[in-house]
Amino acid sequence: MKKLNINNLIIDGVTFVTKPKGFEKPVGVRDYLPYAVDKLRAIEQNVLDCMSRWGYRQIMTPTMEFYDTVGVASSTSDQKLFKLLNNRGTTLVLRSDMTSPIARVVSSLLKEEPLPIRLSYHANVFRAFEEEAGREAEFFQTGLELVGDDSPEADAEVVALAIASLKAAGVTSFKIAMGHVGFLNGLFEEVLAGGVHEQQMLKQHLLDRNYVGFRKAIRELELTISDSQRQELEAILRLRGGKEICDQAMALSEHELARSSINHLCKVWEVLEAYGVSEHVLIDLTMIGDFSYYTGMTFEGYAAEIGFPVCSGGRYDNLLRQFGRDVPATGFALKTNRILDGIHGNVEEVVRPVLIRYNAANRKKGLERAGELRSRGLAVVTRLIHDGEAVPAEADGLYDRVEDFF
Amino acid sequence: MKKLNINNLIIDGVTFVTKPKGFEKPVGVRDYLPYAVDKLRAIEQNVLDCMSRWGYRQIMTPTMEFYDTVGVASSTSDQKLFKLLNNRGTTLVLRSDMTSPIARVVSSLLKEEPLPIRLSYHANVFRAFEEEAGREAEFFQTGLELVGDDSPEADAEVVALAIASLKAAGVTSFKIAMGHVGFLNGLFEEVLAGGVHEQQMLKQHLLDRNYVGFRKAIRELELTISDSQRQELEAILRLRGGKEICDQAMALSEHELARSSINHLCKVWEVLEAYGVSEHVLIDLTMIGDFSYYTGMTFEGYAAEIGFPVCSGGRYDNLLRQFGRDVPATGFALKTNRILDGIHGNVEEVVRPVLIRYNAANRKKGLERAGELRSRGLAVVTRLIHDGEAVPAEADGLYDRVEDFF
Repeated sequence: MKKLNINNLIIDGVTFVTKPKGFEKPVGVRDYLPYAVDKLRAIEQNVLDCMSRWGYRQIMTPTMEFYDTVGVASSTSDQKLFKLLNNRGTTLVLRSDMTSPIARVVSSLLKEEPLPIRLSYHANVFRAFEEEAGREAEFFQTGLELVGDDSPEADAEVVALAIASLKAAGVTSFKIAMGHVGFLNGLFEEVLAGGVHEQQMLKQHLLDRNYVGFRKAIRELELTISDSQRQELEAILRLRGGKEICDQAMALSEHELARSSINHLCKVWEVLEAYGVSEHVLIDLTMIGDFSYYTGMTFEGYAAEIGFPVCSGGRYDNLLRQFGRDVPATGFALKTNRILDGIHGNVEEVVRPVLIRYNAANRKKGLERAGELRSRGLAVVTRLIHDGEAVPAEADGLYDRVEDFF
Repeated sequence: MKKLNINNLIIDGVTFVTKPKGFEKPVGVRDYLPYAVDKLRAIEQNVLDCMSRWGYRQIMTPTMEFYDTVGVASSTSDQKLFKLLNNRGTTLVLRSDMTSPIARVVSSLLKEEPLPIRLSYHANVFRAFEEEAGREAEFFQTGLELVGDDSPEADAEVVALAIASLKAAGVTSFKIAMGHVGFLNGLFEEVLAGGVHEQQMLKQHLLDRNYVGFRKAIRELELTISDSQRQELEAILRLRGGKEICDQAMALSEHELARSSINHLCKVWEVLEAYGVSEHVLIDLTMIGDFSYYTGMTFEGYAAEIGFPVCSGGRYDNLLRQFGRDVPATGFALKTNRILDGIHGNVEEVVRPVLIRYNAANRKKGLERAGELRSRGLAVVTRLIHDGEAVPAEADGLYDRVEDFF
């Protein structure tokens, strides 16, 4: 086996790891220079402010958690967790999301807190191996969790607040696609009762948005299902649109879980209409989200400017049980980095500082003037010009203005 | 060997690692509940705003860095670095400070940027094994670096801005102790020329603030040094005070490095007087800081309310060379967690939300009212009261007021 890259030389099975150069950083992580930080901070602050106006209060949790608790409970696959050992030999992970850590806190520090609990966050999260696909190993999520309320009202609050948050983040043109894990589970159980493998395969095709594969798989099931069952499965792909989809879906399945799920989704839609935001929402029953994790309504947000989902969320009623507090929960996270990279011209102009120059004799005067301007909120940098030193011409565009004290 | 603790059972040399409970988190890390987050955010924002008024712009760098670059260059001892392997087998570290990552960025992404460069940050940093001493394994630093200026003016700017930052953070009563690594190096070299071991030992006593041990060590040197040399060494301990210390120190040593260091420190003091902040500063030539790292002026901030230093900084002219850009630098970091824990009553009162209750028939009206109040900046939570459900009495103190739409 021969393989060559900058950091590892593998020759005939022997690895020579070469030292990284001083200026290098690991693959998949990034530096944010001041312009990007200003933009990121503006998004963070605007979104958290928006969430706080809806009664959500900010929480922070550690970067490192136990693998056996938060690591295992998270929706991230094992191989995508960054792991390290602490000095007691216990395996730790770098958090891969904030939902599991918040579930831990709600079940411990906040276990006496009356429900519902509304919490928000802005945090960096970590995913190993993502860098292989050009994705980031460390990135930001701004999100919230609404714990202890399983009503359609709660799901609608979270979707409406996702819409408000995207607007606060400066995303102007977007759609929320909303589905329900229970509808697909019920319908598949109805048509393919006990066919675990077949159900899994069809779900995977939907998750991959591989509709050609989905149709092909259904045709290959021909011998085991009837024509009308085949049509029922194929009809799923057409279940995308407005409120009318609720009626169409209801006509499609007799299965109790499928029907109660659609019923729930219709009620969520009603509440979204009352919020006046249903124009942003599309019912998409082909959307399945992470089906091992979500238990009810799921949604994703798509922005016109950006080729990937900019937020995702849903209901996860089984997670908190794993931490010893069996209560339902729903929430979402903005994919803040994608918004940061996709949204332009959304931050105030860079503020150029005033430059104050002084010689030693006028130092006190110059520095007092700097203090005075700073107390008025201006940015000021100061510079001593040595006696006899030529006063330099300043580069264009660096400073708002120059004040001299000689 | 028998040893027992909650997570590890070591019996006759065999380790049984028991799984942590679901609600547990690793030792040395913490959760910040909303009240603490509000406080932390207020400190962060006020300090960064203050720094930006001095022309410092914020930067962010990754949590993970290469061990061989930033890890090795950092001032943190090897055993205190959290290490992990990436999927290429290269050792990474969780950053233990922001100074080395910023040195990397200044030498790469910003290598064309004209000097001086002024950068600020607020970041979490990591230290392994600290938890053994009840210290935190993850904590926050808010700080800055001034790169490319080796003048007393630059050192004074950093000290004056540390003072402004502590005030911005809400620390009202504090002192900055300022020393110079070069003075002690020169004086020790003068008295104990070539006595590497003896110099190291005396420095360690000063670092530990073990003045009894320092005096004892000097007495034990009696055979190798003269009476006047012994007195010269002992006199160091009295070199703490105002501007007069400069003259006293100058009288004490003929060594060139010691004298040029004191000369530099006197000039820094002059500039601090021009800033009008010298009342906050104490010259303390017994203060040595991390002597393998700092190359010039060093300082620490002490607050009346808090038993540990609340900030530390100094000049480190040898660091950037390791990243390929040989320029001087000076900076400091606030120990934000200590300020957070030590400062009370410094954050605005918790804002209680308005509660809006509605029944299904009045949902639209209730949610519209919520939207209206939110657009005015108020925090609002909403709740559906089902028809026939008794309208509950709300707990005292949870809400600013209740508005009903029935």
